[in-house]
Amino acid sequence: MRIALLQCPPGAPDTAAGLARLGAFAADAAASGAALLLTPEMFLTGYAIGADTVARLAEPADGPAAEAIAAICRSHGIAVLYGYPERGADGAVYNAVQLIGADGARLANTRKTHLFGEVDRAQFRAGDALSPVVEFGGFKVGFAICYDIEFPEVARGLALAGAEVALVPTANMTPFESVSTRLVPARAEENTLFVAYANYVGREAGFTYCGLSCVVAPDGTDLARTGATEETLLVAKLDRARLDAARSRVTYLHDRRPELYRPLGGPA
Amino acid sequence: MRIALLQCPPGAPDTAAGLARLGAFAADAAASGAALLLTPEMFLTGYAIGADTVARLAEPADGPAAEAIAAICRSHGIAVLYGYPERGADGAVYNAVQLIGADGARLANTRKTHLFGEVDRAQFRAGDALSPVVEFGGFKVGFAICYDIEFPEVARGLALAGAEVALVPTANMTPFESVSTRLVPARAEENTLFVAYANYVGREAGFTYCGLSCVVAPDGTDLARTGATEETLLVAKLDRARLDAARSRVTYLHDRRPELYRPLGGPA
Repeated sequence: MRIALLQCPPGAPDTAAGLARLGAFAADAAASGAALLLTPEMFLTGYAIGADTVARLAEPADGPAAEAIAAICRSHGIAVLYGYPERGADGAVYNAVQLIGADGARLANTRKTHLFGEVDRAQFRAGDALSPVVEFGGFKVGFAICYDIEFPEVARGLALAGAEVALVPTANMTPFESVSTRLVPARAEENTLFVAYANYVGREAGFTYCGLSCVVAPDGTDLARTGATEETLLVAKLDRARLDAARSRVTYLHDRRPELYRPLGGPA
Repeated sequence: MRIALLQCPPGAPDTAAGLARLGAFAADAAASGAALLLTPEMFLTGYAIGADTVARLAEPADGPAAEAIAAICRSHGIAVLYGYPERGADGAVYNAVQLIGADGARLANTRKTHLFGEVDRAQFRAGDALSPVVEFGGFKVGFAICYDIEFPEVARGLALAGAEVALVPTANMTPFESVSTRLVPARAEENTLFVAYANYVGREAGFTYCGLSCVVAPDGTDLARTGATEETLLVAKLDRARLDAARSRVTYLHDRRPELYRPLGGPA
């Protein structure tokens, strides 16, 4: 499966403008032969846009933006994983991502579970479950959003649920480059799964996003990686043979001792 | 606190010879100003020495080798963390490490919980608990043995038990260099603790040990690191200010969502 990661500056807090950009990038990604376009966190509206704007732009997972994106997917024959502010049935706003297939079907929706600092806490309620793991492109695919992937428990939870690929939209800023260069490769190696990490570049609300989008193989080595400032579509091919080789090389998922790990799920 | 990591070839399967080598290295480490000498896994007897030899050389944690090492510690005014085959009260042989203080007191003993491949499984029974966390040199210190540290749950469990330092004797071989270069730094950063990783060089029973002993700061950067073949004492200073700075920079231990991690402690 070929995937394309979008590394770009955040857009204006304007859903119509976000949809137009997404359409253009989806066309480019489809032209590259990718089956999936992975965007940064909160791509549809921008990320650090303030609680009032987030509340104004939030939509349900099956709202009009999702319908417009389904049309983009069908038009270009490509699946899209996009970040957006989700209006929950409970009325709260979540930092969410949704996967829509090339046929326009809504395949998965998940909410950020680990809120990062005041920027997240002021804008969002935290999700209360790790992402589903769904079949896509011949792989079992799970999702994490930005800060989520920095917690080893999250990627491990996805792997235990069967994930072979973790797709991670992010809005990671300086000076946290080591998330991309150290923690994301470790998540891949210790769980023997692919990790695709799509970040912003440029500035927003006082943050400088640090790029370094990457696709890491299940042995922890880079399949594809870009720099801190490039605006680019980063394309990589996920091969099952690479996954099988990694899972033969190391047997972490088999050699775990779950009975020793109960304190990790205990009271904080 | 200044610590010295011993990177050396494994010795002969001969406890008296191991004690003699340990005495010489303890003298060198004390001369470097270190408060603690950290040795590789199973330093006392060598690691891949076969089940029969391991069974013959195994001793209880308070056996004659421990008494001899206590005398070395007192003689040189230095604490020693050493690996050895432990004869348990249950009669089984464990891959263990023990910390003996500069006054000769036995401060902590722990057993490898994750057995690596046939070499471990043929020689040892697995321990059934993560290590204790003990006060040493002004820090709270926990222990892991080789393969244990490759599981993110282990370092996380130590951190949740209060560890500020993880001491890791290892016998890590090619082609698993990424444990030292990728996973150990990730363990330090994601748990905001110091990790000291002391490995062998040279060959034993068909294995080529890959060295790369290191001390990693709680922000994931190297405090000290050596190469793949050097025989050396690697000295590093652990500063509380460095720990405090890392725990101000990132708040992983505070921002966890334990209620989402219960599957990690569930049935395999």
